[in-house]
Amino acid sequence: MNSAIRDANPALPPHRASEHTAHVELTSRPAWKALAAHQQAISDLHLRRLFADDARRSERMACEAAGVYFDYSKNRITDATLPLLLRLAGECGLDAHIAAMFRGDNINLTEHRAVLHTALRAPENTKRFVDGINVMPGIHAVLKRMADFARQIRNGAWRGFSGKRICNVVSIGIGGSDLGPSMAYEALRHYSQRDSGFGLHFRFISSVDSNDFLEATRDLDPAETLFIICSKSFTTQETLSNAHRARAWCLQGLGHDQAIGRHFVAVSSNAAGVAAFGIDVANMFSTWDWVGGRYSLCSAVGLSTMIAIGPENFRAMLGGFHAMDEHFRTAPLAQNLPVLHGLLAIWNANFLKLHSVAVLPYEHYLRRLPAYLQQLAMESNGKQVTIDGRRVVYPTSPIYWGESGINGQHSFFQLLHQGTARVACDFIGFCQSANAHAASRDLLMANMFAQAEALAFGNTATGLDPHRVVDGNHASNTLLLAALTPEALGRLIAFYEHSVFTQGVIWNINSFDQWGVELGKELTTRTMAELETAGEPQLEHDSSTNALIQRYRRLRHADDK
Amino acid sequence: MNSAIRDANPALPPHRASEHTAHVELTSRPAWKALAAHQQAISDLHLRRLFADDARRSERMACEAAGVYFDYSKNRITDATLPLLLRLAGECGLDAHIAAMFRGDNINLTEHRAVLHTALRAPENTKRFVDGINVMPGIHAVLKRMADFARQIRNGAWRGFSGKRICNVVSIGIGGSDLGPSMAYEALRHYSQRDSGFGLHFRFISSVDSNDFLEATRDLDPAETLFIICSKSFTTQETLSNAHRARAWCLQGLGHDQAIGRHFVAVSSNAAGVAAFGIDVANMFSTWDWVGGRYSLCSAVGLSTMIAIGPENFRAMLGGFHAMDEHFRTAPLAQNLPVLHGLLAIWNANFLKLHSVAVLPYEHYLRRLPAYLQQLAMESNGKQVTIDGRRVVYPTSPIYWGESGINGQHSFFQLLHQGTARVACDFIGFCQSANAHAASRDLLMANMFAQAEALAFGNTATGLDPHRVVDGNHASNTLLLAALTPEALGRLIAFYEHSVFTQGVIWNINSFDQWGVELGKELTTRTMAELETAGEPQLEHDSSTNALIQRYRRLRHADDK
Repeated sequence: MNSAIRDANPALPPHRASEHTAHVELTSRPAWKALAAHQQAISDLHLRRLFADDARRSERMACEAAGVYFDYSKNRITDATLPLLLRLAGECGLDAHIAAMFRGDNINLTEHRAVLHTALRAPENTKRFVDGINVMPGIHAVLKRMADFARQIRNGAWRGFSGKRICNVVSIGIGGSDLGPSMAYEALRHYSQRDSGFGLHFRFISSVDSNDFLEATRDLDPAETLFIICSKSFTTQETLSNAHRARAWCLQGLGHDQAIGRHFVAVSSNAAGVAAFGIDVANMFSTWDWVGGRYSLCSAVGLSTMIAIGPENFRAMLGGFHAMDEHFRTAPLAQNLPVLHGLLAIWNANFLKLHSVAVLPYEHYLRRLPAYLQQLAMESNGKQVTIDGRRVVYPTSPIYWGESGINGQHSFFQLLHQGTARVACDFIGFCQSANAHAASRDLLMANMFAQAEALAFGNTATGLDPHRVVDGNHASNTLLLAALTPEALGRLIAFYEHSVFTQGVIWNINSFDQWGVELGKELTTRTMAELETAGEPQLEHDSSTNALIQRYRRLRHADDK
Repeated sequence: MNSAIRDANPALPPHRASEHTAHVELTSRPAWKALAAHQQAISDLHLRRLFADDARRSERMACEAAGVYFDYSKNRITDATLPLLLRLAGECGLDAHIAAMFRGDNINLTEHRAVLHTALRAPENTKRFVDGINVMPGIHAVLKRMADFARQIRNGAWRGFSGKRICNVVSIGIGGSDLGPSMAYEALRHYSQRDSGFGLHFRFISSVDSNDFLEATRDLDPAETLFIICSKSFTTQETLSNAHRARAWCLQGLGHDQAIGRHFVAVSSNAAGVAAFGIDVANMFSTWDWVGGRYSLCSAVGLSTMIAIGPENFRAMLGGFHAMDEHFRTAPLAQNLPVLHGLLAIWNANFLKLHSVAVLPYEHYLRRLPAYLQQLAMESNGKQVTIDGRRVVYPTSPIYWGESGINGQHSFFQLLHQGTARVACDFIGFCQSANAHAASRDLLMANMFAQAEALAFGNTATGLDPHRVVDGNHASNTLLLAALTPEALGRLIAFYEHSVFTQGVIWNINSFDQWGVELGKELTTRTMAELETAGEPQLEHDSSTNALIQRYRRLRHADDK
C-alpha cells in the first residue's frame, strides 16, 4: 500500500481483502497463469463447435436472480473457464472485498472514504456504520424529506413565487449528477406524472455551452419552473455556471430576490455555499462523501426522478437496487450474477484481449443506458495503478459504448459482424413493454435474439461470396427481464455496479476515485485566466495550444461566421 | 477482383485505381514497410519531447481549408511520418480513386453502383454522369420540388385533411434515414422555424419498439401532423412497421382514407410501394441507388431538415458540403484536410494500434454527431475482405464513439487520461455560438484546449502520488471552425465522409456496401415466424437461442411484471 495513503489514514482498519492482495502481482497468481494457459488451449474453438452436440450448454451457462435472467453461454468459454475465473476471484479475496464494502470499510483508500451507495437503498431497519455511526437514520430522513417535497410539487401544494403551480422541473448537474437523473427519467418517463391535468415536464442541463441552458428553458415560464441544483461540493464549475444563468433568468422573469427560495432547491453537502447562493437550507437535500457521483442515483441526486415517478415508484426502484445488492452480498460466487458478469469481463478484456464492450438495449426507453454505463465502468476502472500505487501490467477497463440495439443494427453492426475489431456485446431485452399501450414486442425481440445468434455462429454455407461471409465466434451476454419497471431498472443498474466492482477488485485498483481528471481542471483554470485577461497576455503553452488559443481569441468576437 | 463480381458486371469500366491496387497486398507495399520501421524507430518519443524546442511544430502540422482549421500536431508523428503516409497514398492510387468517385465510376463494386453523394451538393450547372446519363438535372428537379413543398409547409399553404395548418413534422426512418436527419435537426435547430406564430415541431421515429412511436406522437394532433416516410426500398421492416402505425393513428384521428394523402409524403425510389401505401406519388421525393443511406443527408432524406431550416439554409448546407468536396477533389494530397485526417487514422489504427476513436464535440448542438459518425465510419469501413475478395491481414475501422466533450470530462475522460486503453481523440470546437443569445464560450473552449493539452503532455511534477500521475502522449486532432452554421455543418460532415473514403482506399475495401448485416435479417425473419406461429413450434436454434425464445414466449403475455 502506498505509504502516503497509509500515513494519512492511520485508522484504516486492516481487513482480509488487503491481506489477500498485498504485494502479489495479479499476473503472478496461479489462477491467472492457469487462465492464460487455458485460453491458449481453447483459442481455436469456435462457438459453433462449443454449442454443437451440447443441448444443455445454455442451461449450465445461464443464471437467474433478482428478476434478471443472465445467459452467458455465448461467451468463448468452456466448462473449465468459469472454475478458473472463480479461483482467481478467490485468490484476489473477492468475498472479503464484498464484505468490506457492505461493512462500510474505507475501501476508497486514496480518498480515505467508505463506499456505501448500497446503504442508500437498504431498508430503514438495517444498520450501516461509517466511523462508528449508523448512517441509515440519516439516509431515511433525507428520503422522507425528498418524498414530502416531491408530493408537494406533484399535488401543487408547493407554489412558485407568484402563486402559480410548478409544472417544469429543471435538473442542473453534470457527470453523475446528470447521467443518472437524465437516464432514469428517460427510462421511467412512462411512469412519470404527465397525463393528468397537472402534468410535469422535466429538463436536464449539464453543459457550460450556454446553448444547453437556452434550449432547455426557451419555452418555459419562470413562474412555473423549479430548478434542482445538483453539486455535492456546490463548486462544480459547469453546474454553478448554469445555476447562475438560471438565477438570472428567474430574477429577470420574476423580478425579486425572494423568488429564488421558491424556485430553487439544492442537492449538496455544502450548506454554506447553498445559502450563499440564496437557496433556503431547509430546501437542501444532503448527500454524503461515501456516495460517489456515478453511484448517486439513489441519493437525493435522484430527486427529479422521484418527483417524476412519485415516492412510491422511487421506493420500488430502491427495492430493485436492494434486491440485487442482497443477491451480490449473499449468493455464492458461482451463482452470483454480477460476479459472473464481472469475471467474464476480465476474461474478455485480459485473456481474449477484447478492447471494447457494446451495450445494446433493445428497449426504446433505455437509449441513454450506454452513456450511463460508460461513466460507471470507465470512470471507475479506467485506471493505471493498483490500489497500492504500482503500475498495472495488464489492461484494465475497456471502452464501453453503444446505442439502442435495433438502431445500431442499421449503423455499426456491420463492423460487429464483419470488422476486424472484435467487440464483446451485452444484449439487454424485456419480454413485455412497461407501457400497456405498446404493441407486441415480437419483432423487436426477434431482432435481438437473431443478432446474438448471428454474432455467435455466423454463416456456414459453402461457396459464399467472400463479401458475404460472416465468421461469428463473437462473445455476447444476454440479459432478459420481464418489463422495464422502476424495480427492474434498479436491479439492472445494481447488476452493472457490482460487475464493475468485481472487475476493480480483480484488477486491484480503486474503482471509486478519479484523480485522472484533475490535471484537465488545472489547465482549464490557467487557460480561462488567459482568455479573460485584458490585453491578451503572451501564451506559454506548447505551440499547438498557443495557436489554437490565438485563433480562438481572433475569431470569438468576429462578425464573420 | 472477385471473379463472380467481375462476371456479373462485365461492363465495369477499368480505371487506374484498380490497376494500381490489383494483387498487391497492402502490407507488402514499400511505404507500408517503411511506416512500420518508422513507427518502431520513433515509438519511444513522447509528445512532450516532440514539442520541446520546436515552436513551429503546430504551424507545420496544421492546415486550413473550406473554413475548417485542422490541427494534427498532437498526433504521435515526426516530420518524417506524413511523407511516408503520403507515399502510401500514392502507392494505393488514392488520387485515381478520388477521381473515379467524382467521375461516377462503379466504385461500389460488390453492388455494381456508382457512388455519387457528392453530386447531390454540386451546383446545377455541373455535369455528373452515371451510365452515360447526366444526373444533375434529376437532382435539382428533386431539390426544387423539396423546396416547393418545404415552403408550403412553412407558410401554411399546405393544409391537413381537416384544413388545419401542419405544425408537427414526424420523420420515420432508420439507420442513414434517421441518423442524418435527426443529427442535422439537432445541429441546426437554432435555425429552425419555431419562434414565429407558426412554429414547427420535429420528431424522429426509428425503433420497432412501439414505445418510440407512442412517445413521439402522444401529445400530437393528427390533424396538424405530417409524416415523412424515408425508405429507399419502401420495404425496410422497422420503417414500414412504424409507417403502418402512423397510418392507423391518422385514420383513427381523422376518420378517412383520403386523409393519408394530406398527411404522408415519402422519400423513396419505390413508386409502386409508395402508391400501395396510399401516398400520392406526386408527394414522393426520389432518391437513387448511387446514394448510400449513410451518405444521404443531402438527398430527399434531408427533407425534414429543409422544412426545419428552410430551403435557403439547406442550400447553404449543401454549399458547405460542396466546398469541402471541391477541396478534397482538387487540393494536393499534402494539403488536403480529409486526406491528412484519413491517413493519420491509418497511422493510429495500423501502426500505433489504437482501437478506438473518441469523437468529442464541444458544442451542445452536436451531441448526436458521435452517433452519426459512428455509422459513417464503422458501417463504411468495418470490413474484413478487400474489394477483390481477399481477407485483410491488418485492422480496418476502429470503434467510433463519444459524447459531448464537456460532458465526457465528467464521465469517461478518467479512462482517457489514466486508463490502459489508448484512444485517439477528435476535438471539435467552434469559436462563436451560432445562437446570438448565447453567452461567451470562453469557459467551454478553455476546457477543450486544456483537455487536448493534458492528453498530449500529461503532468511532469516529480514525487507525485502515483494515483495522480497522468502520462500524456495521447494522440488527438483538433478541428476549429468559426460557428456552427448550416454551411459549417456541411463542411464538417463532408470532411469526415472523405476521411472515411481515404481510409477505405488505403485498406483496399469497399466502403459502400454492408453485406455483414444480411445474416441478422435472415435470422430475424426465421425467428419472427417462430414467434408468430400458433402452437409454439419446436425450436431448432442453438440451446441458448432456444432457451431465450422459450423464456420470451412464456413471459411476453404474463401479467406479472
